[in-house]
Amino acid sequence: MSTGKGPSLTKAQMREIVELTSAPMQGTRRPVVSALEEVLCIAFSVLDHGIIRVVDYMGDDAAIVQAARVSYGRGTRKVSEDRGLIAYLMRHRHTTPFEMCEIKFHVKLPIFVARQWIRHRTASVNEYSARYSILDKEFYIPEPEQLAAQASTNRQGRGDVLQGEEASRVLEILRQDAEGAYHHYREMLNEGDDGQPIEPGRDGLARELARMNLSLNFYTQWYWKVNLHNLFHFLSLRADSHAQHEIRVYAEKMLEIVALWVPLASAAFEEYQLHAATFSRTQLLALGRMLQGEHVTQENSGMSKREWAEFEGILKRTAPA
Amino acid sequence: MSTGKGPSLTKAQMREIVELTSAPMQGTRRPVVSALEEVLCIAFSVLDHGIIRVVDYMGDDAAIVQAARVSYGRGTRKVSEDRGLIAYLMRHRHTTPFEMCEIKFHVKLPIFVARQWIRHRTASVNEYSARYSILDKEFYIPEPEQLAAQASTNRQGRGDVLQGEEASRVLEILRQDAEGAYHHYREMLNEGDDGQPIEPGRDGLARELARMNLSLNFYTQWYWKVNLHNLFHFLSLRADSHAQHEIRVYAEKMLEIVALWVPLASAAFEEYQLHAATFSRTQLLALGRMLQGEHVTQENSGMSKREWAEFEGILKRTAPA
Amino acid sequence: MSTGKGPSLTKAQMREIVELTSAPMQGTRRPVVSALEEVLCIAFSVLDHGIIRVVDYMGDDAAIVQAARVSYGRGTRKVSEDRGLIAYLMRHRHTTPFEMCEIKFHVKLPIFVARQWIRHRTASVNEYSARYSILDKEFYIPEPEQLAAQASTNRQGRGDVLQGEEASRVLEILRQDAEGAYHHYREMLNEGDDGQPIEPGRDGLARELARMNLSLNFYTQWYWKVNLHNLFHFLSLRADSHAQHEIRVYAEKMLEIVALWVPLASAAFEEYQLHAATFSRTQLLALGRMLQGEHVTQENSGMSKREWAEFEGILKRTAPA
Amino acid sequence: MSTGKGPSLTKAQMREIVELTSAPMQGTRRPVVSALEEVLCIAFSVLDHGIIRVVDYMGDDAAIVQAARVSYGRGTRKVSEDRGLIAYLMRHRHTTPFEMCEIKFHVKLPIFVARQWIRHRTASVNEYSARYSILDKEFYIPEPEQLAAQASTNRQGRGDVLQGEEASRVLEILRQDAEGAYHHYREMLNEGDDGQPIEPGRDGLARELARMNLSLNFYTQWYWKVNLHNLFHFLSLRADSHAQHEIRVYAEKMLEIVALWVPLASAAFEEYQLHAATFSRTQLLALGRMLQGEHVTQENSGMSKREWAEFEGILKRTAPA
Repeated sequence: MSTGKGPSLTKAQMREIVELTSAPMQGTRRPVVSALEEVLCIAFSVLDHGIIRVVDYMGDDAAIVQAARVSYGRGTRKVSEDRGLIAYLMRHRHTTPFEMCEIKFHVKLPIFVARQWIRHRTASVNEYSARYSILDKEFYIPEPEQLAAQASTNRQGRGDVLQGEEASRVLEILRQDAEGAYHHYREMLNEGDDGQPIEPGRDGLARELARMNLSLNFYTQWYWKVNLHNLFHFLSLRADSHAQHEIRVYAEKMLEIVALWVPLASAAFEEYQLHAATFSRTQLLALGRMLQGEHVTQENSGMSKREWAEFEGILKRTAPA
Repeated sequence: MSTGKGPSLTKAQMREIVELTSAPMQGTRRPVVSALEEVLCIAFSVLDHGIIRVVDYMGDDAAIVQAARVSYGRGTRKVSEDRGLIAYLMRHRHTTPFEMCEIKFHVKLPIFVARQWIRHRTASVNEYSARYSILDKEFYIPEPEQLAAQASTNRQGRGDVLQGEEASRVLEILRQDAEGAYHHYREMLNEGDDGQPIEPGRDGLARELARMNLSLNFYTQWYWKVNLHNLFHFLSLRADSHAQHEIRVYAEKMLEIVALWVPLASAAFEEYQLHAATFSRTQLLALGRMLQGEHVTQENSGMSKREWAEFEGILKRTAPA
Repeated sequence: MSTGKGPSLTKAQMREIVELTSAPMQGTRRPVVSALEEVLCIAFSVLDHGIIRVVDYMGDDAAIVQAARVSYGRGTRKVSEDRGLIAYLMRHRHTTPFEMCEIKFHVKLPIFVARQWIRHRTASVNEYSARYSILDKEFYIPEPEQLAAQASTNRQGRGDVLQGEEASRVLEILRQDAEGAYHHYREMLNEGDDGQPIEPGRDGLARELARMNLSLNFYTQWYWKVNLHNLFHFLSLRADSHAQHEIRVYAEKMLEIVALWVPLASAAFEEYQLHAATFSRTQLLALGRMLQGEHVTQENSGMSKREWAEFEGILKRTAPA
Repeated sequence: MSTGKGPSLTKAQMREIVELTSAPMQGTRRPVVSALEEVLCIAFSVLDHGIIRVVDYMGDDAAIVQAARVSYGRGTRKVSEDRGLIAYLMRHRHTTPFEMCEIKFHVKLPIFVARQWIRHRTASVNEYSARYSILDKEFYIPEPEQLAAQASTNRQGRGDVLQGEEASRVLEILRQDAEGAYHHYREMLNEGDDGQPIEPGRDGLARELARMNLSLNFYTQWYWKVNLHNLFHFLSLRADSHAQHEIRVYAEKMLEIVALWVPLASAAFEEYQLHAATFSRTQLLALGRMLQGEHVTQENSGMSKREWAEFEGILKRTAPA
C-alpha cells in the first residue's frame, strides 16, 4: 500500500504523525495485530488532497470468536476452527460478535463526500469545525478520467468521459470558482493565509457565517470510529459499483486496511456479502426452471424488464472470471 | 384474523380496549389505512396467554413513496407506479423511505421471549415494571405438540416431539414449579391475590427483590414502537424458520398486520427479503457450472459440507411449490 | 403563527400542499390533536427561502401517560393527574415514555445548517438527492442584522453587527459568488432553467459531479422524522442561545409546533430542561455558603475563572424577569 | 480493588484468564493505560457469584482531547491544559469526543439485573445462549442486610431490613425454589451435572424450552462493549442512589475501573454530572429569593409538595460533607 505525501496535511499534523510513528512501542496485554500496527497512524492518500489513516483499533479475528463463544458457551467447545465459525456467523447474520471489534480512522475528504458518509448513523464522529476554525485552501478537482457525463439510462450513474475542450472547460470552472470562493472567504474573515488581518482595523465576518461561501468540493476532516459490523455494512454499500467514485476510493482503501486487521472476517465478508448475490422469490423460481433446462425469458419469467436486467447481471457473475 | 379472548387481559385493560374501540372516530388530515383501523386496539391471542395489538401507526405505502420522491426530487416525476418504486427501493436496499412509517404495539409475552426480542435495539420500549407493580399469575405452558426434544444435529434446534409419559412429566414440572414460585412470590410480598396482606402486620419483601423468584415463562407486557424498516429486519430474523417457535408466532401475527397496513411494502418484503436467498461467491460459481450442464458435487464445489447442505436447501426452494 | 409564502416552494410542491390541506378529513381511531391538525401540511417560512411543515405525527400527551402506566402497571392507578406524571417523568429522566410520540417534518434549509442538523443521529432522514436531480437556484443570504463579526472572546460566537460598506461588501460577495456558482452548475450540466440543453448536442457533466460547485448556502430539503424524546434533546441544544442563529430559528419554530402538539410535555420540557440549570459539585458548595450569608468570590470558590463566569450567568437567571 | 475468587468462574474460564494474564506483553503503537493494563482480564467479584472484568479498551484521556482538537482544529492550539478542555467538554455537553474511547467488559450477573441493564441500547452485547448451552447451577441469594421490605412511601424503593424469622423464611424460599427449579431443568434436559444422561435412552427436552423453568435470579453472562459517553450515561443512572442495589454494585465497580482508565474524564464526570444537581426554572426563582434573604416555603414557592421535597434534598447537598 502506498502512503500519502505531505501536501494534504498541515505541518503540525505531519509533526504529530511523525511523533506517533517514531515513539517506542509500549507493552499491552490486549490483542495486537502486527500487520495493522505497521500502518498505524500512517496517512494513505485518497483523491487529490484526501487522506485516511488508522488512529486506533480494538480486537482482532480471535476477539470475534471469543465473543461468539460466550454466546455459545459450552456448546462450541468442539468448534476448533476459527475460520469456520467466523464464516458461519457471517452467513447466518449473527452480527453481534463482529460488533466486538472497533476501529478509529482520521479522514480528510471533500464536503460532498462527507455528506454521503455521515448518513451512516451508527458511528462516532468528531469533525473539524468551521464555526471555530478557518478551513485550509484545499478543494477537490477530479482527474480528467473521472469527468463523466450524466448517464442516459441511470439517473444516478455516470456515462462516457468528457473529452477535449468540454473537459477543460469543466476543470477551469471548478478551479476558478473554488479559488474565487476561497479568496472571498478570507476577505470576509479579514484574515490572510498568514493569519494576519488583510485590512487592519476592520472587523471580520464571523467564521460560522463566512464558511457558507465555500463550495462542496472543499476538504473537511474528521475522526470516525465504528465497529466492524457497521463498517462492513458501510463497505457493502460504498465499495459497491453503484457508489459514487469519490466515496468508493475511500471504501476501497478501508477494505485493504480491514484485510490487514481481521483477515478471516474480511475474507468471510467478501465471500458472503460483497461478492454474494441475492435472488428474489420469483428469480429463484426462474433459476429452478433454468436448472431443469427450460428456456426462460423476461416475458415468461414474471419479472419486469428492470428486474430481468438485474437478474441477467447476476447470472453473468456466475461465470468464472 | 381471529381475536384474543378475555383471560389474558385484566378487567381494567379490557375496559380500556372497549372504550377505545367504541369511541366515535375523529377526523384527521393524516394518511389513514382503513384495513388497519379495523383491527386497531383489538387484542389478538398469541400462545396461551399472550396478546398483540396495534395501538397506533404513522404513514402508509404512499408515505414511503412520498419520502423517496423528496430524495429523488424532480428526477422521478415520471415514475407513476408506486408498486414499482417500492419494489425498487426494497431490492436496492434504499432503506430510509421505509423508516418513514412507524407502528406501536402492545404485547404480552413470556419473559424468555422478551429477552430475545429486546436484543433488537432500534425500537422504543416501555415495559410493565415488576419493581413497582405485582405481576399477574400468568405463565406459559407449551402445547403438547411443541414439546420437542433437543435436536441432535443442530444445537439450537428442536427434534422430535416428546410423547406419552415423558411429555406429561415435563408439563407437570413446568406447571408445578410455576405455581409454586408464584405462591412463594405472593407470600414473600405478603399480599394475596385480593390485594390484602396474607399475614396482617408483617412487612412484605420489596417488589424489586421478590420478583427474582419468578421463572422465565411468566408473562410480562410492553409497548413496543418501531419503524417499518427495523420491523422488517426483526421479521426477517424472527419470522424465519430458524427462530424459536415461541417468538415466531408473534412475528407471524405481525406479518399479517403489516400486510393490512402497507400491502405494497409488505409484498416487496416477502418477495425480495423473506423468501429471497443469497448465494455466496463460491455458490454463484457452482451455480454457473450447473447452468452449463456440469455435474457439481460438494467435493468439487469448493464448499464445506455444511455450506453445501445450505446450498442444496436453497436449490430445493427453486422448485415450484 | 404566520405561514410561509410561495417563493420557497416549487409549483408542484405548492399544488401538493393545497391538495393535502383541502382534502376532506378522514376518520381514525388514533389519538388526534386538533391544534396540530390545523397546521398540518402548512409550510412555515424560516430564513429567506426555508420552510418547515409537519407532515405527520403519532401520539399525544395521553400516549405518554399510557405508555408510562404500562411501565408502572397497577402501581399508578391513583395517579390521577397527567400533568403531574409527565412532569415527574421529565424531572427524573424516565425518557422512554416520550419516545412513544413521533413527528415527521418536511424541512427546506441551507446545506451548512443541514450539516449541523444531521449530527443528531437518532432520527430518520430522506434528503433530496443532487446525485439524481438538479437543485433549484435558491441560496441563503443573511439579513443585514445577522451579519455579525467574529466574537473576540468566544471562538464560536458572534460579535457586533457589521455596518455600512463592510456589510454591503459581504452581501455582494455572497450573492455574486452564489449566482456565479449556480450559473456554472447549469453550464456544466448543460441544462437551462427551462430543462432544455443550453448547447444542444453537448453532453452534460454527471449531476453527482456538477453539484460540487455549489456553495454551502444553497438550500436542500428533507423529510425528518424523530421521536419526542430525541426531538427534545435536539431542541435543548439547538434552541439554546449558544446555537448558531441559522439553526436556532428552525428549532424555535419547532418549539411552537411542539407546544401545539403535546402541551403538557412541552411545558415540562421548558420547566425542567430548557430553562433549568445544572450546578456542579463545587458550585453546589459555593451556593450553600452563599445561602448561609458568606461572601463567595471566584478566588475562594474553587472554580476557574471560566466556571465562575458561568456560575454568575446562572445566578443572574434566578432573579425574576 | 479486591479480585474475585474461583467459585463464580468455570475451570475453563479460569484457565483462559490465567493464560491471558500470564502471557508476555506485546508491543503496540496505540495509547496504553498502565493502570488499566494491571487489572486487565482480572475478574472482580460482584454479588455472590457475579464477576466483572475488563477484556479490552481503546483510547485514554488524551484520545478525548485529540478528537476534540480535530473538531476545534487550529482554534485550540493555545489550550494547553487537557484537564481544562475535558472539563469544558463535559460541562457543555460536547459529548462526541467521549465517544472516541471504548471499553469491553465480561460480566456475570443475575438475569433480573441483565433485564434492567439491556435497556441501555447503545452498547454491543454477546450473551451466553441458553438455547445452545446449559446454564450452570448458580443463582443469586441476597445478603441478609439486603433483604429489605417494600418502601411504604416510594413504590420503587426499599424500606427497613427484614429481621429474624421473616428474613430466614425469604432466604429459605429463594434457595429452595432455585434448587428445585434447577433440579427439574436438568431432569427435563436429561443431562446430569456430569454431562451424562440421567436416564439413558430417554430424549431430553430442547434446551430452548427447558430454560423457561429457571428463575430470574439465575446467573447469565455476556460481553458488553460500550463507548465512554454511553458508559457515563449508564453510570449516571445506575450508580445513582435510586438504582436497585443489585445493579448499582456493578456500576460502582465500573466507576472504579473508569477512574483507572481515564482519570481526567472520570473526575469531570463526577464533578459535573454524578454529583451535580439541576434546578428547574421555578426552583431557580426560589433560589434567587432565598439568596436575597427571603423566607421561601413550599406554599409560596410555586412547587408541588413532591418537588419541594426534591428541592430540599438538593439544598442539603450544598452543605459541606
